[in-house]
Amino acid sequence: MRTSQYLLSTQKETPAHAEVISHQLMLRAGLVRNVASGLYTWLPTGLKVLRKVETIVREEMQRAGVIETLMPMVQPADLWEESGRWEDYGPELLRLNDRHNRPFVLGPTHEEVITKLISTEISSYKQLPISLFQIQTKFRDEIRPRFGVMRGREFLMKDAYSFHLSDDCLKQTYQIMFDAYCRIFERLGLDFRPVIADNGSIGGEGSHEFHVLAESGEDDIAFSDSSDFAANIEKAEALAPQGERAEPTQEIKIEELKLERLIKTSNLDLKNTVKTILVLGASAEGEAEKIVALVLRGDHELNDVKAENLPSVASPLTLATDEQVSAVANCHITSVGPKGLNIEVIVDRSAAHLSDFACGANVNNQSYTGVNWQRDCGEINIQDIRNVVEGDPSPCGEGKIVIKRGIEVGHIFQLGDKYAQAMNCGVLTEEGKNQTLTMGCYGIGVSRIVAAAIEQNHDKYGIKWPKAIAPFQAAIVPMNMAKSARVKETAEALYEKLQQAGLEVLFDDRKERPGVMFADHELIGTPILLVVGERNLDSQQIEVKDRISGEKSLIAIDDVMSLFK
Amino acid sequence: MRTSQYLLSTQKETPAHAEVISHQLMLRAGLVRNVASGLYTWLPTGLKVLRKVETIVREEMQRAGVIETLMPMVQPADLWEESGRWEDYGPELLRLNDRHNRPFVLGPTHEEVITKLISTEISSYKQLPISLFQIQTKFRDEIRPRFGVMRGREFLMKDAYSFHLSDDCLKQTYQIMFDAYCRIFERLGLDFRPVIADNGSIGGEGSHEFHVLAESGEDDIAFSDSSDFAANIEKAEALAPQGERAEPTQEIKIEELKLERLIKTSNLDLKNTVKTILVLGASAEGEAEKIVALVLRGDHELNDVKAENLPSVASPLTLATDEQVSAVANCHITSVGPKGLNIEVIVDRSAAHLSDFACGANVNNQSYTGVNWQRDCGEINIQDIRNVVEGDPSPCGEGKIVIKRGIEVGHIFQLGDKYAQAMNCGVLTEEGKNQTLTMGCYGIGVSRIVAAAIEQNHDKYGIKWPKAIAPFQAAIVPMNMAKSARVKETAEALYEKLQQAGLEVLFDDRKERPGVMFADHELIGTPILLVVGERNLDSQQIEVKDRISGEKSLIAIDDVMSLFK
Repeated sequence: MRTSQYLLSTQKETPAHAEVISHQLMLRAGLVRNVASGLYTWLPTGLKVLRKVETIVREEMQRAGVIETLMPMVQPADLWEESGRWEDYGPELLRLNDRHNRPFVLGPTHEEVITKLISTEISSYKQLPISLFQIQTKFRDEIRPRFGVMRGREFLMKDAYSFHLSDDCLKQTYQIMFDAYCRIFERLGLDFRPVIADNGSIGGEGSHEFHVLAESGEDDIAFSDSSDFAANIEKAEALAPQGERAEPTQEIKIEELKLERLIKTSNLDLKNTVKTILVLGASAEGEAEKIVALVLRGDHELNDVKAENLPSVASPLTLATDEQVSAVANCHITSVGPKGLNIEVIVDRSAAHLSDFACGANVNNQSYTGVNWQRDCGEINIQDIRNVVEGDPSPCGEGKIVIKRGIEVGHIFQLGDKYAQAMNCGVLTEEGKNQTLTMGCYGIGVSRIVAAAIEQNHDKYGIKWPKAIAPFQAAIVPMNMAKSARVKETAEALYEKLQQAGLEVLFDDRKERPGVMFADHELIGTPILLVVGERNLDSQQIEVKDRISGEKSLIAIDDVMSLFK
Repeated sequence: MRTSQYLLSTQKETPAHAEVISHQLMLRAGLVRNVASGLYTWLPTGLKVLRKVETIVREEMQRAGVIETLMPMVQPADLWEESGRWEDYGPELLRLNDRHNRPFVLGPTHEEVITKLISTEISSYKQLPISLFQIQTKFRDEIRPRFGVMRGREFLMKDAYSFHLSDDCLKQTYQIMFDAYCRIFERLGLDFRPVIADNGSIGGEGSHEFHVLAESGEDDIAFSDSSDFAANIEKAEALAPQGERAEPTQEIKIEELKLERLIKTSNLDLKNTVKTILVLGASAEGEAEKIVALVLRGDHELNDVKAENLPSVASPLTLATDEQVSAVANCHITSVGPKGLNIEVIVDRSAAHLSDFACGANVNNQSYTGVNWQRDCGEINIQDIRNVVEGDPSPCGEGKIVIKRGIEVGHIFQLGDKYAQAMNCGVLTEEGKNQTLTMGCYGIGVSRIVAAAIEQNHDKYGIKWPKAIAPFQAAIVPMNMAKSARVKETAEALYEKLQQAGLEVLFDDRKERPGVMFADHELIGTPILLVVGERNLDSQQIEVKDRISGEKSLIAIDDVMSLFK
């Protein structure tokens, strides 16, 4: 490709509205352009990267025996009513009517369509298991699209679905997919981790997220410093402290200060205090609203997901209002404590291990010190409800927790029969009985990977693409080609030769100063720059600049092909 | 691919609701499944064909120097307001609101998005001309989706757009695209014709459609029997008859019958009568409605497109109401004739060549015979307003018209500055002045090609794919593999060998009767069947069945690769 016949569209200035580095670089390097909030046009350079990611994903899906299909983006509402998600899915599901006023949605995922398809196309156990995938445009009407294609509204996704007679069979396919995902991210050249994940609202059991590690990641991931263990912090178990809880040594005592002030003025150790959070309890239909207390050590943070997964806590997690707090504890929330509360008290494992601790006294601006669970607080429910922190023992039993940030680019689920049940998707078994299928689903954010790769691989000059997904394998940068016939001839011959060899080369034939050209190619992140200049031509050499290492070297023109071996 | 690990989904029965053969065969051969009216899932076999078409289209676009991009399917309404199409486009444009109640459309085409992009990315004449394409899902909310993917609502399209400083430059790119389109349809292996087309509502001048010839085609195409000339019947010029019009020989005479009855009872030659159609004339805003008469020879048909393109005729063509007819001619429409009408009379070239003809007399149930234009009818406006018919002289000057049916699968336009003007898309010229660009646009219906290929290539057993787009290059059909270790071993070895050679082979490892297997592969249209049976193995041979020719032959197992050279 010659730049004169290409749409390079690089920009010098960093766009003010772009918050994250990948978004800034994608705009500056001419990869995407904004069309409306969360909607992007992929410019030629960006699309090359997107297609390379897509190809690697497709090849590995095929290698894993997954069959490609293509489902429509516009889906009829009745399928979503059948699955129950027409009601359950929030406003991220874009609903629309056609000209006959029939309701449709823009597909954010395709569980409904595929389950319906399987229920009509597969009738016998002999046809199972079966796994299908598609690479298709998805739409999620994000309330606040941001970070460019990282959290856009229209995006490209690979979604796969597997169908099985038994959970054992599902687990086998799940493992095959897990391995395929690892190969995909390895081939993409990204530093990634599979992490144990929460299943969220999609239901079912057994799930991993695949994260590209990057400081700017949205998610916290807990690793063991001594094993392969990695889990989304939402899911990482905080183990109970070792050993027996110490016996009480102090009498309980009232302090005329609220806990926060008391900690500051008395040099109390935060680790020997507890904080109490009041939230809505789960209640059956028609039952009165309940309030539940969640108690954590003063230095720990509540893990919303762990809390809302408890049977007695309402999901989604909802804080009690000021009125509800008053009704339960007769004081402001900052003075609430576990002693004397007449509601269910759920205590985190670490908090439950304390003795002689400080807490709110359920009277405004009063606290207790010297509190002990059994002696002072009655019955409590001990659970894991906090986020792990660095230094915690790893739940795998080996080493300590280290926390890093990641960008979620893939997610695999053992879904179970949620959709198959709702949509009546079953087959005849060998014994001639109808049996509902069990399902897995497996997603990869294809467009998101492009942004995540940049978050992980960049410097102050621009993008440093992993070779597998660089838009071009090399760029030819001639110095003052307009003034030197020899430079022009050499550059043209080199371009011809590399093209013949099937390499993707960008030939910078613009009349631009060398500085402008170098800046553009470093911004775009071309891995190898081949600099053709008068000086080196006397010795039949050109200069090679390596984008990743930054190293420069001279190479004989005739040896150029060795760079691509 | 082994059938046991594949989703074959063939059906014996012809689905009752499928009207055309391609739709029937696409359902029966397991290429697509209906999700909702006009919305389809592409099953694995169909998707393979779709992707092959897509790949050929992409390669030829790239060869023609067109750069690939990808624009969003969901487009903001403000772009459509800017171009004027928010008002102009009918209900086929699906409009929707996002969660913030902002209006969007599902893109039926992308002129707005690309013109906006070029207006911001291209600023200098040095960057021109530029041509961009995408292969993207489109949505058109057809009032009555039918014929399967032939007239679906969501479909895959290749759309390209070119931008130029001058019409000459546009014409050069137009020719490059014309040639690329011819290469695409040649490579696809289809019998096609580029035909001169009307530009329709999209505006601008210069346009060709590309048609796949098939008896079931929706469009009539006029060919010359002696040259390359081909035009959509909407656009094929009907030449004026040769020679001078004959002089009047009869007196005008009133007959007490309406023309239709008169023709039947008097054995009048239809070719010596004229029929008169009253339609709405074009009127400026505020001006009173006008009625215009269109006069054709009795045996000819009105060409709506030619008529509505005339400056004095309203577009779209609108027939006068009974009241309007009465007000103008004081009789029922069946008795209207050109003599004595006090409105503009537009006469088709062939009708204008008549003398001593019969027509309505503008009195209910009365006709004239012996009418002559100059003597009896005053001033007339002679135009080409009829459809050509077989036997007409070809407008190219060589040979006679032959009419065939075609399926439109591509369309190229010289659009001009309609969008560039409306959306302020210009660049600085060499002289430093701002100049609005001129544009071309170029579409190919990728999913439609799959259906059109079937309409052109099938027999009573199923699809006969052109080799370039067949889902599989060959199928291995073992006879009673379960009972013969030798058949199984040979089939497996053959499969391994063909796969190693990079061929796409379907290995039918089902426990099915040979008849069922053959029927499936003939339905799917696999070009070559390799039949492995006990009998031929004694001589180390297998049987080869050619789907196109229907021929069977024996080949030594070791020579199988020669079939794919």
